[in-house]
Amino acid sequence: MTIRFGLLGAGRIGKVHAKAISADGNARLVAVADAMAPAAEAIAAQYSCEVRSIEAILAASDIDAVVICTPTDTHADLIEAFARAGKAIFCEKPIDLSLDRVKACLKVVRDTKAVLMVGFNRRFDPHFRAVKAEIAKGSIGAVEMVTITSRDPGAPPVDYIARSGGIFRDMTIHDFDMARFLLGEEVAEVSAQASVLVDPAIGTAGDFDSVQVMLRTATGKMALISNSRRATYGYDQRIEVHGAKGAVSAENQRPAMIELATAAGYTRPPLHDFFMTRYTEAYAAEIAGFIQAVLGKAEAAPTGEDGLSALALAEAALKSVALGRTVKISEIL
Amino acid sequence: MTIRFGLLGAGRIGKVHAKAISADGNARLVAVADAMAPAAEAIAAQYSCEVRSIEAILAASDIDAVVICTPTDTHADLIEAFARAGKAIFCEKPIDLSLDRVKACLKVVRDTKAVLMVGFNRRFDPHFRAVKAEIAKGSIGAVEMVTITSRDPGAPPVDYIARSGGIFRDMTIHDFDMARFLLGEEVAEVSAQASVLVDPAIGTAGDFDSVQVMLRTATGKMALISNSRRATYGYDQRIEVHGAKGAVSAENQRPAMIELATAAGYTRPPLHDFFMTRYTEAYAAEIAGFIQAVLGKAEAAPTGEDGLSALALAEAALKSVALGRTVKISEIL
Amino acid sequence: MTIRFGLLGAGRIGKVHAKAISADGNARLVAVADAMAPAAEAIAAQYSCEVRSIEAILAASDIDAVVICTPTDTHADLIEAFARAGKAIFCEKPIDLSLDRVKACLKVVRDTKAVLMVGFNRRFDPHFRAVKAEIAKGSIGAVEMVTITSRDPGAPPVDYIARSGGIFRDMTIHDFDMARFLLGEEVAEVSAQASVLVDPAIGTAGDFDSVQVMLRTATGKMALISNSRRATYGYDQRIEVHGAKGAVSAENQRPAMIELATAAGYTRPPLHDFFMTRYTEAYAAEIAGFIQAVLGKAEAAPTGEDGLSALALAEAALKSVALGRTVKISEIL
Amino acid sequence: MTIRFGLLGAGRIGKVHAKAISADGNARLVAVADAMAPAAEAIAAQYSCEVRSIEAILAASDIDAVVICTPTDTHADLIEAFARAGKAIFCEKPIDLSLDRVKACLKVVRDTKAVLMVGFNRRFDPHFRAVKAEIAKGSIGAVEMVTITSRDPGAPPVDYIARSGGIFRDMTIHDFDMARFLLGEEVAEVSAQASVLVDPAIGTAGDFDSVQVMLRTATGKMALISNSRRATYGYDQRIEVHGAKGAVSAENQRPAMIELATAAGYTRPPLHDFFMTRYTEAYAAEIAGFIQAVLGKAEAAPTGEDGLSALALAEAALKSVALGRTVKISEIL
Repeated sequence: MTIRFGLLGAGRIGKVHAKAISADGNARLVAVADAMAPAAEAIAAQYSCEVRSIEAILAASDIDAVVICTPTDTHADLIEAFARAGKAIFCEKPIDLSLDRVKACLKVVRDTKAVLMVGFNRRFDPHFRAVKAEIAKGSIGAVEMVTITSRDPGAPPVDYIARSGGIFRDMTIHDFDMARFLLGEEVAEVSAQASVLVDPAIGTAGDFDSVQVMLRTATGKMALISNSRRATYGYDQRIEVHGAKGAVSAENQRPAMIELATAAGYTRPPLHDFFMTRYTEAYAAEIAGFIQAVLGKAEAAPTGEDGLSALALAEAALKSVALGRTVKISEIL
Repeated sequence: MTIRFGLLGAGRIGKVHAKAISADGNARLVAVADAMAPAAEAIAAQYSCEVRSIEAILAASDIDAVVICTPTDTHADLIEAFARAGKAIFCEKPIDLSLDRVKACLKVVRDTKAVLMVGFNRRFDPHFRAVKAEIAKGSIGAVEMVTITSRDPGAPPVDYIARSGGIFRDMTIHDFDMARFLLGEEVAEVSAQASVLVDPAIGTAGDFDSVQVMLRTATGKMALISNSRRATYGYDQRIEVHGAKGAVSAENQRPAMIELATAAGYTRPPLHDFFMTRYTEAYAAEIAGFIQAVLGKAEAAPTGEDGLSALALAEAALKSVALGRTVKISEIL
Repeated sequence: MTIRFGLLGAGRIGKVHAKAISADGNARLVAVADAMAPAAEAIAAQYSCEVRSIEAILAASDIDAVVICTPTDTHADLIEAFARAGKAIFCEKPIDLSLDRVKACLKVVRDTKAVLMVGFNRRFDPHFRAVKAEIAKGSIGAVEMVTITSRDPGAPPVDYIARSGGIFRDMTIHDFDMARFLLGEEVAEVSAQASVLVDPAIGTAGDFDSVQVMLRTATGKMALISNSRRATYGYDQRIEVHGAKGAVSAENQRPAMIELATAAGYTRPPLHDFFMTRYTEAYAAEIAGFIQAVLGKAEAAPTGEDGLSALALAEAALKSVALGRTVKISEIL
Repeated sequence: MTIRFGLLGAGRIGKVHAKAISADGNARLVAVADAMAPAAEAIAAQYSCEVRSIEAILAASDIDAVVICTPTDTHADLIEAFARAGKAIFCEKPIDLSLDRVKACLKVVRDTKAVLMVGFNRRFDPHFRAVKAEIAKGSIGAVEMVTITSRDPGAPPVDYIARSGGIFRDMTIHDFDMARFLLGEEVAEVSAQASVLVDPAIGTAGDFDSVQVMLRTATGKMALISNSRRATYGYDQRIEVHGAKGAVSAENQRPAMIELATAAGYTRPPLHDFFMTRYTEAYAAEIAGFIQAVLGKAEAAPTGEDGLSALALAEAALKSVALGRTVKISEIL
């Protein structure tokens, strides 16, 4: 059976999903909607699908599932509308910047029994999945300490930052989800430190550009996250999990895996400089995973609750920085 | 402009090219031919193209280019026929096992001014291309010594080996082409050693399974090739180029780039176990390169002459083993 | 000029220093003292020096410098005595478990103008020194974020732990010193989390076996430390420094740098399993550095104040765990 | 029991051995001889031993063993003299440049039952030993193909080259010994290619600076050697052994194992730039191994016959280049 897709939002990440849907043998891109007509038309032309309004997609009988890539403040409304319309929903993170709004939205999803999957693409990276598989196999015994390093090649524009909800909700949120995924337990306590080291304008906008976070579960398992909005050497994405019987890690990915040896030493080229080239395979696997869920062959995961939990961790981190103390998740959720 | 393709041969490598053509925005797979109807029909169904006879493809006005993946002994005849029909031709290596037949075929190609590209896919691997680019940039100065290691996870069936023309023409031929590509000069002398270490049945079939070859150009540049039909750890494909100012190398590729640390040490999973997964990107880039040549935007390379030269090196290596001496290419071509 | 040494304490670390002193062309081991006569006699026999009492060494005119490797609770008294006797002093960390006692001791050192160096051996590891040298050269620009991972192959006996002052003062203290060394600024704030994951008996003894710490300076530079008393794969010691222009790191060291490739993957042997083999070169360089300080050719560093600062960080970490909040160093020192 | 040493030759390599002897708990350096008095005196002063003539060392009753580091053309005569005098002998490679002279010398050694060990230091490198140990353990199954890469940071002075017996006898000889050590079988056939790519003056002196060699045993096992007198990135020394069940390799060694990441990529510092720092541990282990042989606790290996065999391979390689054909060792020995 082929899943028929409507794409909501034809921007940067919308294009990524359009490509992944079109390349998947089990899916067909039927329609695309975007407030900016030329963006929708470009995708329609490239993938031979129709431009429609969101309302038309909502009402369409030839659409089984939607991918929501519109601005964040529309996500919750769209999820609710499409859940009520009986469509399966893939939504880019975050569902909303407000925990209360997310909770209300997820109630609608539960009530309508809609299939909802949230776009934490990193869970689908083949290397990170292989790390998770080793944990599941018991190769490292009980998980004890997770270390996640995420650094972006450069900061986004300050006006984006101003609307983003801050670094914890915009960037660290991926690491919060990854930490939960790897710990295999809910986080109970959060402690964070944050600085402005990259660009004072980010501070002026009320945000930070360099942060570190400690997480701890009720049983004492721990995680460390290190984030920076700057990395001259490319898109730095590493995970490491230490357990009772050993450790497992995934190193950075590089577009050209060569090494040059000269009098200056041994040099390998920089990392991928863009999340889309770094996570090409992850985006394809993510849509494939969503299709499996729509077909009823797999659970839809990461779930809306995963999205809520990651957002709660972001909120806790922010509060920890503000108050200079450890914050319990029970204070947040 | 979209290049309209006919695919001749729907076997293992034919499927690889069908996929690459279909995924390329500048190409369309119009027809497929194969002596085994079900094989052709499977590709036709998957990529929405027609099943036709080779003759029909030859006569078709809606076909610009063909990809020849039929058995080796049909390659030269097909190249000649399609060259005369004015189609652009991509042909899997080798053109023929006989140097004379190859020479005659290439004369037809020259006379008809046909576009012909030969399938040495490794030239299109992004990592090997990056090595070549460093050489071209002058990063290592003048090339002095090339080292190529190629080991297959396992030997092909003995009946394949019996028809293959032997390891030098079947397996080492890729390394001969790579050596020429990296040396940037014609090889003048060849010396080879060969053993049966993996499977006595390969020896009974008149072939070797473990060989090593030294190449030398007229100016003294050198290359080493090491081949085995066995590698328990996967598909081992490495190149290294040493020059006056430094060296550049490409390491092996792995499907899962993780590392597990336990009391037994630090373990990374095995390499790709199949040339098709190892060279996925190379096959796509190869067809893209051919399309550029058909569009007149790039030279068609590797050329038929590259195919001839690599075959001559294979012949020279075989002769070197038989005679126990260095063989000059001038004795062969 | 040859520096004449007295060695106080002939235990495990005393032997390391005896060997380093004897192998150094600028030093001679003259006498060794230990409450356990056989331990002192063994060193005396191996390195052709005398067994003397601490009092005799204190009074001796043929001793220029002492190395203090006695139990921790004797360090401060011995430092004061030898400082007053005009001997140069190398003392193993920590000076004392009480900050007040350390402060009083350092006052005597200052008043007597004694040469005092504290045994943070890792600063002398050639690889960590090379990291520091890159920072000093400006290769990574301004330091922003330091990450230190230290994991021991196994926990010490619980009765040792009970006397050790706890993991922060016993184990993390090395990482606190390294963080200060790499940050190049004083730490202002400390936040820590701690668990018992390895051995419940460690918890019963009132200590933790798995901890993580965040440090932050007044200008916002940050550091992360991850510690475990367990690492099946050997003695795990890594540092990484991220800066405005790049990052620099030192990986783990291995006794046998080979790689085995089989059907199970690519395996490198485990790390060093003991701090003494891991830091062989560091111990030799440390004594060489101390000798340079005694000769007046270099500053004595790490200083007593470095020892005090690292201890204060340990105290702050402990307090942070107890109170569940960030602790300012100004609350401690 | 302590072995009392006489050192013959106080040059560069003599100093290395003097240091290794002095640091070994089972050895004492008693006397040193050198035609250049100041060189001998420097070693005597540093290690508190006597300067004596070779004749005096030969006649001395307080000398158990000698280390011969004099010019090559004196080696065979000295071995014979000290063998007859009943001293154990460690001799730097080669025993002589003439195979007949070596054979005659080894007859004296056999007749006198002298302990003789030849200085192929690389067999004692801990990493190469670990490779050999994996082979011995059966980790890679039957050895099939050995690959050895040796490149020097720079060529020696041309007047040294003129006296050296040529690159095969001077440089490749280490690789010939290593190939035999790793193959575990005698080489039956040699094929070589040689060029002058680094410095025309080396060609004028009648030698080559870039060579490659193929070896093959009677059972078909094979080895490749690649040598250059130039490597801008340091002292390049790698071995790799491929077998029926897997492969094992030893990578290059580096003095500072750090990595710098910047916009230019990931850079590790160059390799050791000198064989003495690269092989520090090997030189110490080599003397320790010799001492074990003198004490009768181990075989003296590499033996004089190992020295003869490596020299024969050098001769065969030279002949192969001259005649352009494979040379059988039976033609040489």
